[in-house]
Amino acid sequence: MQLYDEFITVNLPASIHELSRLVAIPSVSALQQQQTECALLVKNMLEKRGFQVELLDEEGAPVVLGERRGKVDKTLLIYNHYDVQPAEPLELWNSPPFEASERGGVLYGRGVNDDKGHFVSRLHAIDALLSVDGELPCNVKWVLEGEEETTSQTLGEVVHAQPQKFSADACIWEFGEVDEQDRPIEYLGLRGICYVEFSVETANQDMHSGVGGSIMPNAAWRLVWALASLKDPRERILIPGFYDRVKPVSATTRELLEAIPDQAEALKAQYGISSFLKGLTRGADLRHAGAHEPSCTICGINTGYQGPGAKTVQPARATAKVDFRLVPDQNPMEIFKLLHAHLDHNGFEDVKVELLAHERPAVTDPDHPFVRMVVESARDVYGSPMLIIPSIGGSGPNAIFKDYFDFPIVTAGVGHPTMQAHAPNENLRLDLFEKGAKHIVRIMKAFASSH
Amino acid sequence: MQLYDEFITVNLPASIHELSRLVAIPSVSALQQQQTECALLVKNMLEKRGFQVELLDEEGAPVVLGERRGKVDKTLLIYNHYDVQPAEPLELWNSPPFEASERGGVLYGRGVNDDKGHFVSRLHAIDALLSVDGELPCNVKWVLEGEEETTSQTLGEVVHAQPQKFSADACIWEFGEVDEQDRPIEYLGLRGICYVEFSVETANQDMHSGVGGSIMPNAAWRLVWALASLKDPRERILIPGFYDRVKPVSATTRELLEAIPDQAEALKAQYGISSFLKGLTRGADLRHAGAHEPSCTICGINTGYQGPGAKTVQPARATAKVDFRLVPDQNPMEIFKLLHAHLDHNGFEDVKVELLAHERPAVTDPDHPFVRMVVESARDVYGSPMLIIPSIGGSGPNAIFKDYFDFPIVTAGVGHPTMQAHAPNENLRLDLFEKGAKHIVRIMKAFASSH
Repeated sequence: MQLYDEFITVNLPASIHELSRLVAIPSVSALQQQQTECALLVKNMLEKRGFQVELLDEEGAPVVLGERRGKVDKTLLIYNHYDVQPAEPLELWNSPPFEASERGGVLYGRGVNDDKGHFVSRLHAIDALLSVDGELPCNVKWVLEGEEETTSQTLGEVVHAQPQKFSADACIWEFGEVDEQDRPIEYLGLRGICYVEFSVETANQDMHSGVGGSIMPNAAWRLVWALASLKDPRERILIPGFYDRVKPVSATTRELLEAIPDQAEALKAQYGISSFLKGLTRGADLRHAGAHEPSCTICGINTGYQGPGAKTVQPARATAKVDFRLVPDQNPMEIFKLLHAHLDHNGFEDVKVELLAHERPAVTDPDHPFVRMVVESARDVYGSPMLIIPSIGGSGPNAIFKDYFDFPIVTAGVGHPTMQAHAPNENLRLDLFEKGAKHIVRIMKAFASSH
Repeated sequence: MQLYDEFITVNLPASIHELSRLVAIPSVSALQQQQTECALLVKNMLEKRGFQVELLDEEGAPVVLGERRGKVDKTLLIYNHYDVQPAEPLELWNSPPFEASERGGVLYGRGVNDDKGHFVSRLHAIDALLSVDGELPCNVKWVLEGEEETTSQTLGEVVHAQPQKFSADACIWEFGEVDEQDRPIEYLGLRGICYVEFSVETANQDMHSGVGGSIMPNAAWRLVWALASLKDPRERILIPGFYDRVKPVSATTRELLEAIPDQAEALKAQYGISSFLKGLTRGADLRHAGAHEPSCTICGINTGYQGPGAKTVQPARATAKVDFRLVPDQNPMEIFKLLHAHLDHNGFEDVKVELLAHERPAVTDPDHPFVRMVVESARDVYGSPMLIIPSIGGSGPNAIFKDYFDFPIVTAGVGHPTMQAHAPNENLRLDLFEKGAKHIVRIMKAFASSH
């Protein structure tokens, strides 16, 4: 491995320069901003490495699909995204978000970690393999989309239209990270999501609360009652049928959850909380509740007067954003239907619900051999094998692939606990960038030589 | 009456000019803005009419108290306020809010109706009386405060400190208006108010909903559950003891409610609603519910993400404004205590409540002779006697006087249904300004000669 590792270390500045070029394109998908420009640069970067690249474009931002054959006819799919979250609030950044800037071995900028840094660290691994071996150890298919931060609609359409283009034997997912002790983590799954907006309009204008309060409908009250009907203070979701498809976790998963270091106290300190919901105290139980049970979260409510002091107004309009996280085998479209039926059944026909985002849950079987292979490939780079976390609480488009293929999907990447993804001063530790590239080299070599 | 009326008509332009000077001072109490400047101009205007004037000032804006003796030793108290609501949203005004501007017999500007126009129309009546008779028919005490729009705290302190200064035999309240048919209305009371702000803080920062949703407390949920515990969808307020002090209305009040023209269809059309709360349909029942029953209104909720699209955040903070309207003999301080006890009893110790405003309910006995006298004095000016409305849904500081005196408090004024008080393009019909002044002359003459 020495030659690959030397290449990676020596050529680090060139790779970081390449990352800076990508960061300089503010490809904010929420604003539909410069996605095509960014896709073209990505295409160019892959073509320089001998990939055949096509842009698959339905209505939205182009999906970049690159492909290069390798020595062994086994195919590794790599998934990344070239879009980023908005940089706001700008005043909290210590350097301009779209100019990558290094300070003390850490690179700052929007997307340096989520997800442009992951893409470029993997490109760097490809460069090392090509430089030392003149070829790749296995086939690589590389798919990059431009709408990950806005729930991957185009990717879903593109895969659905021509699924065979994405066939593979295993898949490395967009991200990956180390924990507080710099131990690398392999995540195997994501929860699904059903994100809805509630809206109520009870009158054509706000009214004086002294006039309307006693006799005319109040949008804020209607919304509060509708929301309160969804979940009780004991955290039980009250929509009939909601839990019907929830599968219990396997014995292996239970064991893996028990093996994860207990983060209960660290979470309490980080968020300034004194206790967890549902009386939970143990790390393994928190991991189970946080990633293997569904949830229902109010993300925001907007109605009436919100300024200082007292304004005596009765609101005519009220909206709320609500996020349901789902676990196998719940389906977001089915949950949306159950929600509708629940509201109608409880007399909330005046409360409209709109589906803003939906992704299905998908989890890779922890007993798949590729899972352990990636875990072991890390040992030599990080000084320890990866810690397996069977699923995380967040969501992503992994189910798009799981619909057509049963290849394992695992993470391996350059993140760390204070990388500030989605937040001001997003950052990338250059030592982890280097380690991430070295890990990818080892994964590809091991994958090519495995049976 | 002809001489008084002629004076009022002929000198109208001078009176409107005087009103314009007052409007030009943007005495917005919510911003604590130019209240003293406005008080000094008011003082000057009263002194020009031979009133002895003092400024009573505790911590807040000065209370102006003017006094002039009349022919008969009976005292009429007039209450007005010189503060105004904020002018925002400025872009909706057709002319600058603090420059009174006449278009088609209507004067536009912030405060032309609420309440500077009422004050000046009454000054104009005083001028007519002094010009024709050289004296006032009765003693007049005139109290003007600068914090009516922010719940009259200084007035309360000033009256409490020296109640004898405000002794009188009857009182004309700040406002008054005609209905859609230009029939003048006499209001006899106001509901009380207990206006609170709820706030919940469940963590030191917002968190990713995929992380926090299942295991960490959510401020938005805590707030929704606390609010839902206050009132059920059938409009029953659930705070134990809330209704205990509610007095049934008298037979006279019932009769008066039945005599008020039914406004159900007009309200439906105005606000674009299809039905009223609690199955109410008849105007008299709506009047009863809207002014003689207490209410609980959510005025606004602010938590989490409120922009477009989906943001997967779990809010650490949530606030709501809630307005309780009260009827005799409910007491806002007692209601606030009951609310506290209710929240604690239901496990919402984490939900803080702050009292932002409180005023007690107060209603004048409709059988008092002064009530009928004012009603009859209108006949000759408006072509019909006043319509008596025993109480309205809004609130005001009338209970401050009711604590010490049992003089009747009635309205007589220059408002009309589309005057846009508190809203952009607040306006004053000059014909009603003239009529209002003429009515005040008649009220004072009749009051002085009554037994």
